[in-house]
Amino acid sequence: MKTISENRAFGGVQGVYSHPSEATGTEMTFGLFLPEGAEDGRVPLLWYLSGLTCTHENAMVKSGVQRWAAEAGIAVVFPDTSPRGEGVPDNPAYDLGQGAGFYVNATQAPWNTHFRMWDYVTDELPRLLFNTFPLAEPAQAITGHSMGGHGALTIAMSFPGRFRSVSAFAPICNPTASEWGRKQFTAYLGADETQWAAYDASSLMKKRGFDGPILIDQGTSDQFLDLLKPESLATSMSERRQSGSCRMQKGYDHSYFFVSTFIEEHVAFHAAALFA
Amino acid sequence: MKTISENRAFGGVQGVYSHPSEATGTEMTFGLFLPEGAEDGRVPLLWYLSGLTCTHENAMVKSGVQRWAAEAGIAVVFPDTSPRGEGVPDNPAYDLGQGAGFYVNATQAPWNTHFRMWDYVTDELPRLLFNTFPLAEPAQAITGHSMGGHGALTIAMSFPGRFRSVSAFAPICNPTASEWGRKQFTAYLGADETQWAAYDASSLMKKRGFDGPILIDQGTSDQFLDLLKPESLATSMSERRQSGSCRMQKGYDHSYFFVSTFIEEHVAFHAAALFA
Repeated sequence: MKTISENRAFGGVQGVYSHPSEATGTEMTFGLFLPEGAEDGRVPLLWYLSGLTCTHENAMVKSGVQRWAAEAGIAVVFPDTSPRGEGVPDNPAYDLGQGAGFYVNATQAPWNTHFRMWDYVTDELPRLLFNTFPLAEPAQAITGHSMGGHGALTIAMSFPGRFRSVSAFAPICNPTASEWGRKQFTAYLGADETQWAAYDASSLMKKRGFDGPILIDQGTSDQFLDLLKPESLATSMSERRQSGSCRMQKGYDHSYFFVSTFIEEHVAFHAAALFA
Repeated sequence: MKTISENRAFGGVQGVYSHPSEATGTEMTFGLFLPEGAEDGRVPLLWYLSGLTCTHENAMVKSGVQRWAAEAGIAVVFPDTSPRGEGVPDNPAYDLGQGAGFYVNATQAPWNTHFRMWDYVTDELPRLLFNTFPLAEPAQAITGHSMGGHGALTIAMSFPGRFRSVSAFAPICNPTASEWGRKQFTAYLGADETQWAAYDASSLMKKRGFDGPILIDQGTSDQFLDLLKPESLATSMSERRQSGSCRMQKGYDHSYFFVSTFIEEHVAFHAAALFA
């Protein structure tokens, strides 16, 4: 593992690190904020999964999450959204290929050689983190924005008991029924739609639900609202009697100004579960 | 004036606007955050001047200032750091030309045709702002980072009575004695050093001081500490018996993580003066 940078922030350290990944076959970069308390012992970990076009850096510099994580005594990890670099397939569209891994394991050429973000985020990166940093594996929570909200919800429901709480900002809620999903799943997973359901939050909610609290925030002026389909997830949550909140926030759009406005409440929500 | 974007943020609006500038002879872009209270009447205004290589956007997306400005009921304006565009002189160095206006009126060719950032920030932009937005002209404060801290300090001391308070993050404190200053002043103002003193915070402090509170934060691990010379300003403040605080913050560097860590305290500092 290489240290790219470490900056003091809010009494803790905002680091950026890279490492060769077996899952993706590339060098992967991630950000990790450690609060001051990590100097004295293991601290809880909040996963922040980012959206389309993002790297590890966007949330790290724009969300303001460190302010609240420092206060609560929680670490935050910011994984990249896809493999990158020479030899890694890409597509001219912003929503396919590099920057658009969709947190799945691709099975179709040419993507299947590197695009294994599910394994990277759920297996390889956690092992690296818990072996390297003072993080408390039993105290994990997960959140994300847009494509990262999709990742947070699907991963949380697929690993029962791993995450105490899950939240999302403007998540892609029903990708199998949206052009933010169908296009990418066809490319990464193939035309057989039965292979897609494991990566659809609304389907997983119907089938499994989540054993903990859920918090979803969605802006009413989001320019991508029709692609996100929060109504599908809300319906599934209601049918399943899933405990959780789906909030429509008046006038907010899809930008990081929306995320930074509500990140304080999301950290407080996760802190309540992590320190329960 | 053109509206580039408006995003709801923290109950208010983060806007980006552009307008043709007489001072610079170019189209100039700025950001303006208006808190919710601006819907009902005029609100105080905090100026945030940015550093080398920055545009209007860096502090707007990275500092997190809006969170605290919204809570206090203060607007924040983010001017650009230089004229830009075709026909505007530039230099391959990051610290001269576009992105490096140093908040001066250049008198030397080729810079003197466009690089009139002093007039832009102290005269033209204020007039535009107070004519266009619900801002309270008698309630202004000013802050900035690095080159923008230099701008904030020199402008605050040059317009007695205009600003209630001034603060800075890692400001260039003594540019006439630093390579962050001598190089640019030679280019913009010429070799006659008597023309430079009006743009040197330590000199102005000796000569005039500031009729209000001053707050300076400086990281002890700042990679540019030798160029910033906070000791010169601290000495001048002490000699003048200027009221104010110069704080050395252990372990912090020159990045926006330093700014975002302490911006909450700077907004509280300005709010105390603006609502006094």
